[in-house]
Amino acid sequence: MKIGFIGLGVMGRPMAEHLINAGHDLFVHRVKDASQYLVTAGAKAMQTPYEVAQNADVLILMLPDTPDVEDVLFGEEGAANGLKPGTLVIDMSSISPLVTKEIAARLEQATCEFVDAPVSGGEVGAKNASLTIMVGGSVAAFERALPLFNLMGKSITHVGGVGDGQTAKVANQIIVGLTIEAVAEALLFARQAGADPAKVRAALMGGFAGSRILELHGQRMIERTFEPGFRIRLHRKDLALALDAAKRISVALPNTAATAQLMNSAIALGDGEKDHSGLTRTLEAYSGVVVD
Amino acid sequence: MKIGFIGLGVMGRPMAEHLINAGHDLFVHRVKDASQYLVTAGAKAMQTPYEVAQNADVLILMLPDTPDVEDVLFGEEGAANGLKPGTLVIDMSSISPLVTKEIAARLEQATCEFVDAPVSGGEVGAKNASLTIMVGGSVAAFERALPLFNLMGKSITHVGGVGDGQTAKVANQIIVGLTIEAVAEALLFARQAGADPAKVRAALMGGFAGSRILELHGQRMIERTFEPGFRIRLHRKDLALALDAAKRISVALPNTAATAQLMNSAIALGDGEKDHSGLTRTLEAYSGVVVD
Repeated sequence: MKIGFIGLGVMGRPMAEHLINAGHDLFVHRVKDASQYLVTAGAKAMQTPYEVAQNADVLILMLPDTPDVEDVLFGEEGAANGLKPGTLVIDMSSISPLVTKEIAARLEQATCEFVDAPVSGGEVGAKNASLTIMVGGSVAAFERALPLFNLMGKSITHVGGVGDGQTAKVANQIIVGLTIEAVAEALLFARQAGADPAKVRAALMGGFAGSRILELHGQRMIERTFEPGFRIRLHRKDLALALDAAKRISVALPNTAATAQLMNSAIALGDGEKDHSGLTRTLEAYSGVVVD
Repeated sequence: MKIGFIGLGVMGRPMAEHLINAGHDLFVHRVKDASQYLVTAGAKAMQTPYEVAQNADVLILMLPDTPDVEDVLFGEEGAANGLKPGTLVIDMSSISPLVTKEIAARLEQATCEFVDAPVSGGEVGAKNASLTIMVGGSVAAFERALPLFNLMGKSITHVGGVGDGQTAKVANQIIVGLTIEAVAEALLFARQAGADPAKVRAALMGGFAGSRILELHGQRMIERTFEPGFRIRLHRKDLALALDAAKRISVALPNTAATAQLMNSAIALGDGEKDHSGLTRTLEAYSGVVVD
């Protein structure tokens, strides 16, 4: 299949590679040193998103944020004008659920199909083709995209209509961010009250406080290993998406807002490139606690 | 063994019953209609905590809050003056970790041993003898208490010295309360953004957002089943313990504080006796959303 793939970052590169390895013809844009190996493997480098779209039966986007997706599609020499009728556009970026619905409406006017399909699982998941993929769109578009998703991910859920994939991703990032913050408050409290945080974590693992976050990020907080993983700076972007969408639909998210502020503080204190389990350091700073 | 047991509430009654069934001699106080069956089963009703203590080799407390424990031990006709040297006092109430250390110091002056051993698992765990028990105290005192714990619980952890059991319980209640709040924010956001919360929850279950809370309390939020379980009013008490202890040791717990305020609101809106998954209703009320 002829696939346009725009967004060859840390996540996009291994995802594109899986598609090439499966025998698909890839058309890419903005090839840099780090992605040159994809061209060596057969991907064709195009000058503009418009040219990528002209060659594609399916166009996949894996871009950093909402304005990047809007620019690649609708900017000067953007992809939208180059799309043939019937082309399937798959946006795997994590962007605004509400803007996603607007984008889909514009593309459907051009008789293209659209699914939003943000992922979780990080660089490791992208490399191992084990990403979790949350999909929004029609059943027909989902089924058309599914063989490609199966090359990149493992847990693939059709959540609902257009935008619902992004909504699920936002919900995911709210829960992950706020649970990390909760574990950080609990372990900091335990430490300052004189208990051993490692023993407290162990005592809590089997009960209602048990979670993937307590298991993995709790361990990182105790062992003080804050190499990403998933960077605080990127998680702040995801909570900003949540708060922007919440503002548009007037939903109050008090702890999401407070946790986004904590992430602002983390970045101000120099920890933006650390793993999000490093939020424990920010809470420690609030209380004048120096662990490392 | 001669065991004093004070605190025959919803939790204390089945716990005391397990001890009687194992052949221990129980001495109890304040027998009401609901606990009369324990006397029928052989427990001896005493007039005062003092008399209970005089008869006991081990004294177990299962009381609502910090002042109740202080009153039963050190109030008029309190247990402390009746304790024989060498008596083991086991406080299974959920109370202040810092006051616990003060209580233990006073009892140790009277040459008694002390362990704090708060539980989680609720009424069902108490009835099934499957409670999680978090224990603080010396190794010797822990080992002395362990055969009794085994009659009431399943997951029993010696967390550390005196007070560390209560500290672990507070950490547990912070994580559980804040994770419930996080799941409630995420599912409310999903609903208002137009997605099906049940499908969003399903998409998130296997990833980093996965937790016992998303599994159980998330399901309750979707099915709108808010019978306790664990009441918001009682969880507010536990977060108040966290915030009181945090104040004494000057630790900032921003989301614990915000969630305690949300619980105040829940109680003001008439939901104090509902299960803590009912916090979703409070967040809905903040955003003018009426689901049920």
